[in-house]
Amino acid sequence: MDEALGLLASERVGHLATIRPDGGPHLVPMVFALVDDAIVTAVDWKPKKGRLQRLANIEANPAISFLVHHYSDDWDDLWWVRVDGMATIHTQGPTWQRAIDALREKYHQYRERPPEGAVIWIQPEQVSSWSSRR
Amino acid sequence: MDEALGLLASERVGHLATIRPDGGPHLVPMVFALVDDAIVTAVDWKPKKGRLQRLANIEANPAISFLVHHYSDDWDDLWWVRVDGMATIHTQGPTWQRAIDALREKYHQYRERPPEGAVIWIQPEQVSSWSSRR
Repeated sequence: MDEALGLLASERVGHLATIRPDGGPHLVPMVFALVDDAIVTAVDWKPKKGRLQRLANIEANPAISFLVHHYSDDWDDLWWVRVDGMATIHTQGPTWQRAIDALREKYHQYRERPPEGAVIWIQPEQVSSWSSRR
Repeated sequence: MDEALGLLASERVGHLATIRPDGGPHLVPMVFALVDDAIVTAVDWKPKKGRLQRLANIEANPAISFLVHHYSDDWDDLWWVRVDGMATIHTQGPTWQRAIDALREKYHQYRERPPEGAVIWIQPEQVSSWSSRR
């Protein structure tokens, strides 16, 4: 695995940017897991507001940016890893199941109550990283 | 001040999504402060890679999304606040100075060494928020 992806995998939450139908940006936090080099997340039972904008956006335009960030008040200890790539949506089948399994392994909340909704599968095209330790 | 903006102001770091010239999303973490209802950040002395993509993006397309997120392993204690709005860039003058002053008040690192680069000034058009406590 790419070293930056390994660092990314160590964090609990990231941020997903997608493109709205009007061309503007849309941003949500998301828990995630890695399956090989892919980043996966799923629609779970946490409260939602209607049809999820992120899914509609990806269906219309699969280009996404995903960022994991470590913040500290010690500004010599900051880093981030960003993945630019393409997202696809899966609602059943082996790809969906692999993502759910990886999420259940990472989050005890999902072992107690697995997500049942759509999986977003992000295939990285470019991985960028930054660290204040330079 | 809007209640959600007050919550947002209590956090130390947020995430800024802008649109690349090719229409794709671009994502960076950023420290920030509030000036009235505007969100401000500045290019500082932390190491950078060449000309900043975020500035080039905003110059071509001012539509941005900014999100502040509180994560906890207790999933009953999650929240986020998102601001969709328009960004402008300021490199000098009273608007630039107001932003720098607000950033210095919030971050001791900036009191010791103020940012000298461009200010990004975000005027909110829509404020959305979500909490798992529902």
